[in-house]
Amino acid sequence: MKSFLSGILLLAATTATAQNFTADSTQIAGITSHILLKGQCYEDLRVLTKTIGHRLSGTPEAEKAIAWGEKTLKAAGADRVFLQPVWVPRWVRGKEKLEVDLAGNGKYQTLKALSLGNAVGTDGKTISAPLVMVRTKEEFDALPAAQVKDKIVFFNYPFRQEKVNAFEAYGDAIWLRGYAPVAAGSKGARAVIVRSLSTGMDDAPHTGSLWYRDSVRKIPAFAIGNTTADQLAAALDKNAVAVRMMSEAKMQDSVLSYNVIGELTGTEDGYIVVGGHLDSWDIGEGAQDDGAGCVQSVEIIRTFKALGIRPKHTIRAVLFMNEENGARGGRAYADSAKSKNEKHILALESDAGGYAPRGIGLVMSEAQKKKVKSWKPYFAPLGVYEFDVEEGGVDISFLGKNGVPLAGLLPDPQRYFDMHHSENDVFENVSHRELKLGAAAMAGFIWLVDTYGL
Amino acid sequence: MKSFLSGILLLAATTATAQNFTADSTQIAGITSHILLKGQCYEDLRVLTKTIGHRLSGTPEAEKAIAWGEKTLKAAGADRVFLQPVWVPRWVRGKEKLEVDLAGNGKYQTLKALSLGNAVGTDGKTISAPLVMVRTKEEFDALPAAQVKDKIVFFNYPFRQEKVNAFEAYGDAIWLRGYAPVAAGSKGARAVIVRSLSTGMDDAPHTGSLWYRDSVRKIPAFAIGNTTADQLAAALDKNAVAVRMMSEAKMQDSVLSYNVIGELTGTEDGYIVVGGHLDSWDIGEGAQDDGAGCVQSVEIIRTFKALGIRPKHTIRAVLFMNEENGARGGRAYADSAKSKNEKHILALESDAGGYAPRGIGLVMSEAQKKKVKSWKPYFAPLGVYEFDVEEGGVDISFLGKNGVPLAGLLPDPQRYFDMHHSENDVFENVSHRELKLGAAAMAGFIWLVDTYGL
Repeated sequence: MKSFLSGILLLAATTATAQNFTADSTQIAGITSHILLKGQCYEDLRVLTKTIGHRLSGTPEAEKAIAWGEKTLKAAGADRVFLQPVWVPRWVRGKEKLEVDLAGNGKYQTLKALSLGNAVGTDGKTISAPLVMVRTKEEFDALPAAQVKDKIVFFNYPFRQEKVNAFEAYGDAIWLRGYAPVAAGSKGARAVIVRSLSTGMDDAPHTGSLWYRDSVRKIPAFAIGNTTADQLAAALDKNAVAVRMMSEAKMQDSVLSYNVIGELTGTEDGYIVVGGHLDSWDIGEGAQDDGAGCVQSVEIIRTFKALGIRPKHTIRAVLFMNEENGARGGRAYADSAKSKNEKHILALESDAGGYAPRGIGLVMSEAQKKKVKSWKPYFAPLGVYEFDVEEGGVDISFLGKNGVPLAGLLPDPQRYFDMHHSENDVFENVSHRELKLGAAAMAGFIWLVDTYGL
Repeated sequence: MKSFLSGILLLAATTATAQNFTADSTQIAGITSHILLKGQCYEDLRVLTKTIGHRLSGTPEAEKAIAWGEKTLKAAGADRVFLQPVWVPRWVRGKEKLEVDLAGNGKYQTLKALSLGNAVGTDGKTISAPLVMVRTKEEFDALPAAQVKDKIVFFNYPFRQEKVNAFEAYGDAIWLRGYAPVAAGSKGARAVIVRSLSTGMDDAPHTGSLWYRDSVRKIPAFAIGNTTADQLAAALDKNAVAVRMMSEAKMQDSVLSYNVIGELTGTEDGYIVVGGHLDSWDIGEGAQDDGAGCVQSVEIIRTFKALGIRPKHTIRAVLFMNEENGARGGRAYADSAKSKNEKHILALESDAGGYAPRGIGLVMSEAQKKKVKSWKPYFAPLGVYEFDVEEGGVDISFLGKNGVPLAGLLPDPQRYFDMHHSENDVFENVSHRELKLGAAAMAGFIWLVDTYGL
């Protein structure tokens, strides 16, 4: 009798699972088809990038982007759209110039270069110094301070192209912005030049935030592209090289800015966040980084509304301000959520580009990961298979510190560092189908978390 | 005693497998790193596309491409490079013009359009006829011949953007080139215009081979881009639309051309083919279709040579001629292999673009598929996971008919039909890292098949 009953229960359970699987697969396929066929995120991105362009925190363009975000979320059908105040740093590049006497004959030529973000400048004055090159951190550490003092140090560490996952290579090279300016400053260097964190086969310099240490004198820092870096290295093989550098870069007083938030009201308590960051560096158009994540997040709202999906939990599309040079938006959101005691089920960020999705990173408990991984079959038709990476996003990391489960879209990483933080990050380098497919993966994931919890 | 012995054997087998796995993983990781860091395929592609450009069978550019192939395979270190004669069709586009009176007021405007490949023209004369639009095959079949006779039929079937796998959408729409011209001809139409098989958000017309039937009168056939197709449809909603068409397109006598073959000599009998096709359509640069497959195939030879991998079987990189409008190169290769009784272990083709690889299609016995699938863990670090698609390639399909196991590289399909057979298929739309990673997946697969057989 017992075994007979077990048999019946097993059958019932199998059938229920099978029915859910079919129904849920159909729902996710429907969401995917809808976005691929009728999604507006690519057109939204065109408007953001082509009518506003780049939008560093605190600039007039960032203000325009905030207005764009409000308007776009309303048009997408959000039940409620609001701005969340954020005080952001206001870094200004100003004019800048990097010149080099390659042959050591007193003739200077201008190099294509960009000050690193948040860097100090030269107060607009031209400084001049001999160039010293090192290739690695260890090589720099071994240099006596006397060989660094009053020099400009060129950190020529190559981005490791041999890594299949370019984000690993980025992590490997990030010391060029995090360590190099401080280390050189502490040995009395006048300034640093770093090889860009770039997979590009071109000469575009890539900017990005550096980090000073309060105890160490802040010195100017420029990035140069791969070709220029190779030219400098070749010149240094032959003769002494002198550099002239001018930069008006400086940090101004903080200004009031905003996160832009659009909600689809849930039938029950609790929030699910899906977001990207609205600010970008002050070159290119911030298309992949991270206009893509913003328009994909808006697409979730639009899609649920269009398909009549009424969520259990309130879905919040959050367009974070100031990810690039302060992450104040992410902090402000998490602080607000904590002070209001808002229960967050999940936060999902898309900030690795609008490329074809391959996975969803998970930062949550093992039990929660196990539940998410049981959904893998739903994502196979989208070519999304990777759920074993511990990855959320910078903006949502502050929610994570408050115990909120995090997820991060994992797009194909091959092209990201060709354009990241450079003039190459423009709308033309975004594929409409890749962008939409990323949004579809996010929408399916949000739908599953909303329906079944974590 | 028996169970004790079994235990030892099992342990030995497990150990052997584990050791092989580590050694083989290391080998494949080494091949991958080498190609990502030192691969020359992107530079090879630059030379092919930028110094020669497009290269339709039988053209002077195709001849130059053959010389390029020989030179490039020699430089890559092939032990032997030779040309295999192939008689190819020589289709000439000539001048062409498509004009339309959109408002029905006698004023004609020129449309962006391309004759389909292998199509007949109008002998350079301008023909004029009213336009009839159908959206589906069924709609056309339901049209009485009287409504088609002496008209120009516009097949406005949309490419199904909602399909995640764009190759499925291509298969779904291929009747526009395979059925439409014949069906319209059989009902007495003067010509056809088809909506391009394109995922593009632009107006680029996409060409490609049509297929006539000998029993049906051959009529001219043009492709128009998505925007133009929508404009035509909108105009037809309002008023009658007349079209003027002129084309000098024609098929000339066959000419002698060549497959280009480079070998790495094996230590044992048998051949493994890795290839792509050297010819392209007569617009764009044939970069993704299929310059990519050619330079990736050359990269296998170069990599094995550089890493000192001496293959068991002779590895042949085959740059096939005439895939686009006749597939004579594939036939010639298979005929030659058969007549010489050459034992082929495998043929692998890359003809779906040099995008980030996601899988390897398999056309072989179930036992062979099972063996290949046991290698899946080696490919996981490359993001290559799909081995359940039955797909080889057009050029190698003739070997397949002779019983040779086939495989086809399966790159990410999202961007392929934005550029396929159009002016958008240029070098600038190829990612150096995606191209190299595809070559790495191919190299790893070839190495495993060479080492362990099928």
